[in-house]
Amino acid sequence: MSTIDPTTSGNSSLPQTIPVPTGTRDVLPEEMAELREVCASALRTFTAAGYGEVATPALEFESSMQRGGASLLESAYRVADRDGQVLTLRFDSTVPIARLAATRYADDQPPLRFCYQQEVYRVVEPKRAQSRQFLQLGVELLGAEAPSGDAEVIELLVRTLEATGLRNFKIAVGDVAFFDRKLLDAGIGDALRAQILHELHTRDLVGARRLLVQSELAEDARDRLIDLATARGDRGLLERAEAQRLLELDEQLALAGVHDRVIYDLGLVRELDYYTGTVIEVYAPSIGFALGGGGRYDNLVGRFGRDLSACGFALNVEQLHLALLAEREATA
Amino acid sequence: MSTIDPTTSGNSSLPQTIPVPTGTRDVLPEEMAELREVCASALRTFTAAGYGEVATPALEFESSMQRGGASLLESAYRVADRDGQVLTLRFDSTVPIARLAATRYADDQPPLRFCYQQEVYRVVEPKRAQSRQFLQLGVELLGAEAPSGDAEVIELLVRTLEATGLRNFKIAVGDVAFFDRKLLDAGIGDALRAQILHELHTRDLVGARRLLVQSELAEDARDRLIDLATARGDRGLLERAEAQRLLELDEQLALAGVHDRVIYDLGLVRELDYYTGTVIEVYAPSIGFALGGGGRYDNLVGRFGRDLSACGFALNVEQLHLALLAEREATA
Repeated sequence: MSTIDPTTSGNSSLPQTIPVPTGTRDVLPEEMAELREVCASALRTFTAAGYGEVATPALEFESSMQRGGASLLESAYRVADRDGQVLTLRFDSTVPIARLAATRYADDQPPLRFCYQQEVYRVVEPKRAQSRQFLQLGVELLGAEAPSGDAEVIELLVRTLEATGLRNFKIAVGDVAFFDRKLLDAGIGDALRAQILHELHTRDLVGARRLLVQSELAEDARDRLIDLATARGDRGLLERAEAQRLLELDEQLALAGVHDRVIYDLGLVRELDYYTGTVIEVYAPSIGFALGGGGRYDNLVGRFGRDLSACGFALNVEQLHLALLAEREATA
Repeated sequence: MSTIDPTTSGNSSLPQTIPVPTGTRDVLPEEMAELREVCASALRTFTAAGYGEVATPALEFESSMQRGGASLLESAYRVADRDGQVLTLRFDSTVPIARLAATRYADDQPPLRFCYQQEVYRVVEPKRAQSRQFLQLGVELLGAEAPSGDAEVIELLVRTLEATGLRNFKIAVGDVAFFDRKLLDAGIGDALRAQILHELHTRDLVGARRLLVQSELAEDARDRLIDLATARGDRGLLERAEAQRLLELDEQLALAGVHDRVIYDLGLVRELDYYTGTVIEVYAPSIGFALGGGGRYDNLVGRFGRDLSACGFALNVEQLHLALLAEREATA
């Protein structure tokens, strides 16, 4: 049998006369075997914790998926069905699993625990190095309230990353409502508040500061808000900021023995419409981008007909693999 | 931890007010775990035989994928890219792997061996019970000539099905050029020949017979052709029909010890444009449809820039799983 060596073949000096679209790529055997390993470790961890794997269709009705909010739909691929209905290519797994839970498990006793390993697809802007296609691993825990539900999901995230062999990582934890409330308490109106939160979404602190300058706040109140938006730390930070919900979560994480993996980030705001409470992002010092994230979304499942609180995370398998490779290289 | 029982939940008597598109479905945990088992057994068999797993993008340029022939493109979903290029949703894995092999392995010593586990998507006609989405497991062997390459692929197909636990199955083997040559030898012109072959594609023997009646063949010559198109059997059939290429293949399959799994079918014509020689289809008596198929396609890889003969098969994971379930039920 021949041995295929993708490391040399993939870097063949011959021009690739037949390209694939930007943001997509072929995965060759050596990498594929490693991605399979990562996925298998994660799925074993999920199912051992009682999360049942599900799969949802790659094509769903836009009219159904728009219940997840407008911002995600902006980057959805659409196709017209032969009978005229608009279908979207799966752009996220949380929205379809919310649909699945509300319709297929309409009568089941909560909590419900689901996990998945599936691709999502998003439109890319020309000339940017964005991916059109992401393989994601994730879980959704439905019907378990904060803080215990959040703690279960964060603990599972830590155990999953450990199971893949990743050593150095941190889970940034914030509260999507916390900063909004602080702005509200400071008397900042709805329109400006939304703009400031948008700047935080995009991690544009210069922009957030510029917007705060436009407000009529005193300079020291402004500075305190900026300090909050950039503050990262442990329980002490939560106490100083009086972040009550996160303090309760921290107690549970301490009991679970994973709170040394957590760093609180009071300016953390996830880009998706559906988050309502705790938000999380995963960082590895070995690479410069988040490996995944998630949070609490207590209003989404209800939009599909069953009022259930919910919390979950998704990991980007390719980024996680890059982080593992970077660690392997650093110790080689 | 809660136990999710998809067999009862899935059949909930509540109306599903938020449907998924026809031809798509949710896969719930119990089934998903079984599909994972089937895939893992197959992939282990493939990689043990030296086939390296690859993955290709879900979206590719239509201008590239049309090298696979027009008939498959008819059922492809298309999306317009933001820069105006037309992309097709993956409708088949053989065409993109031919591209991958020709471009990423342009200099590698053949034979090249690839396997895959990925979804393909096809447009469905309204009101027909067709699937939009198929999970396929398959292999492609490039640069190994017939009959030894064909025999390797058929042996691997048998070993793969055995590894999944399937007991009763047959591999129907034909030669896509055989019947065409018989029609040509009988003096039937190009247009009528193409029509007759199309009827065989769709397994419409009544239609094929009607077309033969239109030809100017004597009745006994016509009957011999119909007999050939419907003949199924072992080596004896090949000898009577003077099917030289299949006789050579049969010798190799006998050496590999898998020829009791094979039934020759001289009217077998696969629906895809790219087959050039041996064609195969997998049947299980427990269910009424093919579990998969494949064959030799010696001209396809060359259309992507590297002239390599090729042969492969694809299995429909869902059908394979249904066949396994049917066997389990029959012995329960």
